[in-house]
Amino acid sequence: MTPSGKSCIDNVLIDRAKSVVRVLKERGLTVVTAESCTAGLISAVLSQADGAGDVLHGSFVTYTKANKAMALGVDAELLRRKGSVNADVVRQLACGALERSPADLAIAVSGVLGPDPDEDGNPVGLVFFACCRRGALPEIVQKDYGKGPDDELRRATVTDALTLLAVSASTGR
Amino acid sequence: MTPSGKSCIDNVLIDRAKSVVRVLKERGLTVVTAESCTAGLISAVLSQADGAGDVLHGSFVTYTKANKAMALGVDAELLRRKGSVNADVVRQLACGALERSPADLAIAVSGVLGPDPDEDGNPVGLVFFACCRRGALPEIVQKDYGKGPDDELRRATVTDALTLLAVSASTGR
Repeated sequence: MTPSGKSCIDNVLIDRAKSVVRVLKERGLTVVTAESCTAGLISAVLSQADGAGDVLHGSFVTYTKANKAMALGVDAELLRRKGSVNADVVRQLACGALERSPADLAIAVSGVLGPDPDEDGNPVGLVFFACCRRGALPEIVQKDYGKGPDDELRRATVTDALTLLAVSASTGR
Repeated sequence: MTPSGKSCIDNVLIDRAKSVVRVLKERGLTVVTAESCTAGLISAVLSQADGAGDVLHGSFVTYTKANKAMALGVDAELLRRKGSVNADVVRQLACGALERSPADLAIAVSGVLGPDPDEDGNPVGLVFFACCRRGALPEIVQKDYGKGPDDELRRATVTDALTLLAVSASTGR
């Protein structure tokens, strides 16, 4: 193996994940992610923090509408009518992930990282998050990052998802 | 948003994904990943290639044994008896992912990226892959990368998973 000298995932994101995993571990909480636009990156970032094996059960990456419906039970009629980027869909993604994994806490993300608006006309930079403890109501957060390079929108989305997880773990919401 | 100037995921991996997505698209094939040690990185890398929306349905990241059983139906007794890193488990991960998504092709990965052997005593650098077309038997590949920095093992694992996908798509296996 030839070392490339570069890490697969940017270390700034991994450093952020380390503090989130520490908080989750202190509280004895486990997590599952449900990811559309980030496609598994939140889960992959969390896995690189020390102690991830104690808190991360995994992720459901549902990149297409068909997979949102089939893998996580999101209402296909809702997806047809309102598209993938809205509060109802992220709520169903988070709840569907909790139903299908042993985790205490789910974070779901669906948004448009660009470079173009999505097929339903949602603008670049619009992202919905749902953070949900088992047995509680999901907290929904809508962000509009505005237009930007897709990789910067991806970074902002992953960072905000990690912050939501940390806040939820710390406050018991 | 302050541009960091760094990409979230290393561009060498994304370049590799671009050629895989091109092959999948040419063949009209869609894919789902089932990831243990890579924790969603294969899916995240694929999502960054142009045209990913046409070929990537998503991923099941099953980082813990409990989640392998609950999210993808891996036999809990098998996990107890033989651990997570073997041909039988990756076969069940790939088949479970195909059962729960609309994809034509699944790639499953389970291994030990380190820094320590896993709880079942599997050595650092041992990784199993299963690549499976719907309706066909999975192809199983075992790699022993040997000891190395975990990020280099991660890179090798993602790269080999992408290669297996491309070969499967090209050859019709």
